[in-house]
Amino acid sequence: MTALEQQLNFIIELDKLKSIYRQALIKSDHNRFENSAEHSWHAAMLAPILQQYAIAEINISRVMTMLLIHDIVEIDAGDMFAFADNNALLVQTEKEMAAAKRIFGLLPESQASSFMQLWSEFELAQTLDAKFANAMDCLLPLLQNMNNSGGSWARHTVTKSQVLKRNQHLEHLAPKLWQYVNTQVTVALQKGWLIDD
Amino acid sequence: MTALEQQLNFIIELDKLKSIYRQALIKSDHNRFENSAEHSWHAAMLAPILQQYAIAEINISRVMTMLLIHDIVEIDAGDMFAFADNNALLVQTEKEMAAAKRIFGLLPESQASSFMQLWSEFELAQTLDAKFANAMDCLLPLLQNMNNSGGSWARHTVTKSQVLKRNQHLEHLAPKLWQYVNTQVTVALQKGWLIDD
Repeated sequence: MTALEQQLNFIIELDKLKSIYRQALIKSDHNRFENSAEHSWHAAMLAPILQQYAIAEINISRVMTMLLIHDIVEIDAGDMFAFADNNALLVQTEKEMAAAKRIFGLLPESQASSFMQLWSEFELAQTLDAKFANAMDCLLPLLQNMNNSGGSWARHTVTKSQVLKRNQHLEHLAPKLWQYVNTQVTVALQKGWLIDD
Repeated sequence: MTALEQQLNFIIELDKLKSIYRQALIKSDHNRFENSAEHSWHAAMLAPILQQYAIAEINISRVMTMLLIHDIVEIDAGDMFAFADNNALLVQTEKEMAAAKRIFGLLPESQASSFMQLWSEFELAQTLDAKFANAMDCLLPLLQNMNNSGGSWARHTVTKSQVLKRNQHLEHLAPKLWQYVNTQVTVALQKGWLIDD
């Protein structure tokens, strides 16, 4: 198979991410469930819009690419709710690793390893770029839930500390956004969309 | 309103692109119609995968951002089938210009004008980056249709010359992809998915 054929097969494989549904609801589309492809688009959009709030310069093309590819593993592994229990999350991590190998492995070798490296960097969330990308991925559902009567939080009885912990990358990375998250969590408590713990 | 509030309003407004449906069908999801948000994700993914075929170096973060934002105007203007008649396309252009002003105008001024400039550059398709972004946007439906028994072509009686014209940016920009498009169009004619004209 030529490199181009491998790349086109990968591109066709990506279509499947449009059939992986998440817990978030799309308010503008009769509150149907959101799929991971449109979520990835929305999360990638946050990076250029909010990059000015990062305390140090991020590499915007790396961050956008991380956000574009971060959920591709769900084609095989499915979506796991962010606030699932730890055991379920551990099993999910193994499934996602196998998925990354198979799906990125459809690409020519050097491209496969470059995407694999970028995906692992996102998952480990140790570098500035990866932390910022993770922060965008976590901030987005907060914005969606706050604009949709609590959305997936309300349906899953999520707690204040879970949401703060999930957004904690922002504390040192983008203090202004962290401050915003805290004010929103307070509102969510008042509205009864989050549980106080 | 603070700059951050304007940016978050814009981010929430983007959710609406997930309710704008196109003519393409998602084979992996019971052949439902594709929406413009997930299409934008998929198109943006093509840029890093296929950039090696461009005859000159493209600016990948500009190209990805163009592809992420190219359909946002459809929130107000709706989606228009690529092979609609010229008069309809002219009316659509006016609607999209008004939409760009309103929607990008939700952002703080400098960011609004930067997105507006990038969107206009994509629409005019004169620069290398814009031509490559347009080429990705046009190549993707061809790949989807070829993998789904003709997809939207077959349902709308599209002709060979329409598809070749739509993908013509590739001829000088990425000759190897142009060659691929030509072989695929030949197959589509044999299968009866495109009309010979």
